[in-house]
Amino acid sequence: MALLVHLPGLDQSPWVERFRRALDGYPVYAEGDAVPRSEIRYVFAWKPAPDAFEGLDSLRAIFSLGAGVDALLTHPNLPDVPIVRFVDADMTQSMSDYVIAQVTMHHRLISRYQAHQRAKVWTQLYPPPATAIAVGVMGLGVLGEDAARKLGMLGFTVNGWSRSRKSIDGVETFAGAEAFADFLAATDILVNLLPLTEETQGILNMATFKGLRRGKLPGGPVVVNAARGRHQIEADLVEALKDGTLGAASVDVFEVEPLPKQSPLWALDNCYITPHIAAVSNEANGVRYFSDMLRAHERGAPLTNLVDRERGY
Amino acid sequence: MALLVHLPGLDQSPWVERFRRALDGYPVYAEGDAVPRSEIRYVFAWKPAPDAFEGLDSLRAIFSLGAGVDALLTHPNLPDVPIVRFVDADMTQSMSDYVIAQVTMHHRLISRYQAHQRAKVWTQLYPPPATAIAVGVMGLGVLGEDAARKLGMLGFTVNGWSRSRKSIDGVETFAGAEAFADFLAATDILVNLLPLTEETQGILNMATFKGLRRGKLPGGPVVVNAARGRHQIEADLVEALKDGTLGAASVDVFEVEPLPKQSPLWALDNCYITPHIAAVSNEANGVRYFSDMLRAHERGAPLTNLVDRERGY
Repeated sequence: MALLVHLPGLDQSPWVERFRRALDGYPVYAEGDAVPRSEIRYVFAWKPAPDAFEGLDSLRAIFSLGAGVDALLTHPNLPDVPIVRFVDADMTQSMSDYVIAQVTMHHRLISRYQAHQRAKVWTQLYPPPATAIAVGVMGLGVLGEDAARKLGMLGFTVNGWSRSRKSIDGVETFAGAEAFADFLAATDILVNLLPLTEETQGILNMATFKGLRRGKLPGGPVVVNAARGRHQIEADLVEALKDGTLGAASVDVFEVEPLPKQSPLWALDNCYITPHIAAVSNEANGVRYFSDMLRAHERGAPLTNLVDRERGY
Repeated sequence: MALLVHLPGLDQSPWVERFRRALDGYPVYAEGDAVPRSEIRYVFAWKPAPDAFEGLDSLRAIFSLGAGVDALLTHPNLPDVPIVRFVDADMTQSMSDYVIAQVTMHHRLISRYQAHQRAKVWTQLYPPPATAIAVGVMGLGVLGEDAARKLGMLGFTVNGWSRSRKSIDGVETFAGAEAFADFLAATDILVNLLPLTEETQGILNMATFKGLRRGKLPGGPVVVNAARGRHQIEADLVEALKDGTLGAASVDVFEVEPLPKQSPLWALDNCYITPHIAAVSNEANGVRYFSDMLRAHERGAPLTNLVDRERGY
């Protein structure tokens, strides 16, 4: 029995040390060490290498560091074992912090007032109250639901869209492709927190942007993407931000990361760029969560927060 | 009996028309018309002219259009009648909208990430969760209390400071000059919603800025002023934003408005300027509120939401 920490491209050592302290005697190995592969029962993984799972004949579960499991699910040699998703109050808090900050600053017309400030222009335009603005949240998992609830508490009208119908107090929910146009038409500020799947890839495209409600938010509709870069067609985003289809955007994730210097997004005054920092998996919380899960599972308890491979998240 | 609308510098006619419709027969006059001054029982006022109250021998109350009554209370010939403050759900909503947007965008390090974007730099720094950041709200009237409650719901630690002790669920309250240093030392983001009085004038000065907590919010403490320009010493604000005493500021009000072109504030990248648009008195709501109050008072009911002249607000 053993746990393997497999985080190519990241510094594995702090995770390994924390897991060793937390698991107190249960063997923990770092990928790259001399790993007794046939003894590995659990892999703690992020963006696994092609040969990540080779020789893991005793594998019982994969623990995913990130909330998004798209990089795992597209792995060509993914073993047929349960995948446990990381659910973390701090990560949820940070994602909602990001979403609330972006939605509220756009609601308060930041790109208009920053342009006026650069020109030293004093022109009063009162933003409508939040109660007159509708925010549409795509993706109603743990992160989407928390953001939607908080937006509602601030007074916004909140719409939610997801693959299967969800019920959240105070949120008008839409489900499936057939309801997508209605959802967009009722939305001034669109927030993407979807999982990345074949169906959701490229969902932030020109047709989507053109489907958003116009006339309520001065300056035009707004898009906030805090999920995955491959949700967005960046050429469409650039065009929409230039031609007024969108008034502004906040983008934390990109088709290629780090965002290349030559990307036209950098220079757009109405595009607010952050370097994939909306939310991060906290080491201490992650280790506590998966250590507890591992010990409980070794004692015979069922795994929780499992990924549904068919859905893709 | 009659109501006088006295709004020098503003367009009085839409207010007069709305009051006439709402009061249905009760005489309403606009300042500048042939006003039967001795018949005026109520004045609806904003920044009254020096002779505003001359000859109003039957005056029973002054209705203040704005939430701030400093311009009224410093009037040299203010009659000794009750002053009714405008309390409006929409104005409260708008002020909290502004405060939440500014606090959350600074918490998420907007000025850092905008500087990085201009330089096309990708450097990940994860902002701490809101739960690790303390917002201090100065002024706990209707506006301050609503903002404090909403900040608390988002997860921030919330401190409140006011002249007399207030009790608000989830808010640590401080009262009076003797508690001011402790309040500042526990605060990362300072929000000013105080009334303008002799005691509060110039309260946003270098000593206050230096008293804020350092080390929690990357980039340094932040100040948000949505109350009155004369609360701030603008020379100190400029210096503090330049020398790092403050990481950033959001300023909606200024010593002189419109903010003069030569003000150095315009050019500071870490100063977010808006042209006194945080909250506005909504015409329809204002007319409904004061019409209801006038009719009730004429029927013998007491006035509510009265200004305390001794306190100054």
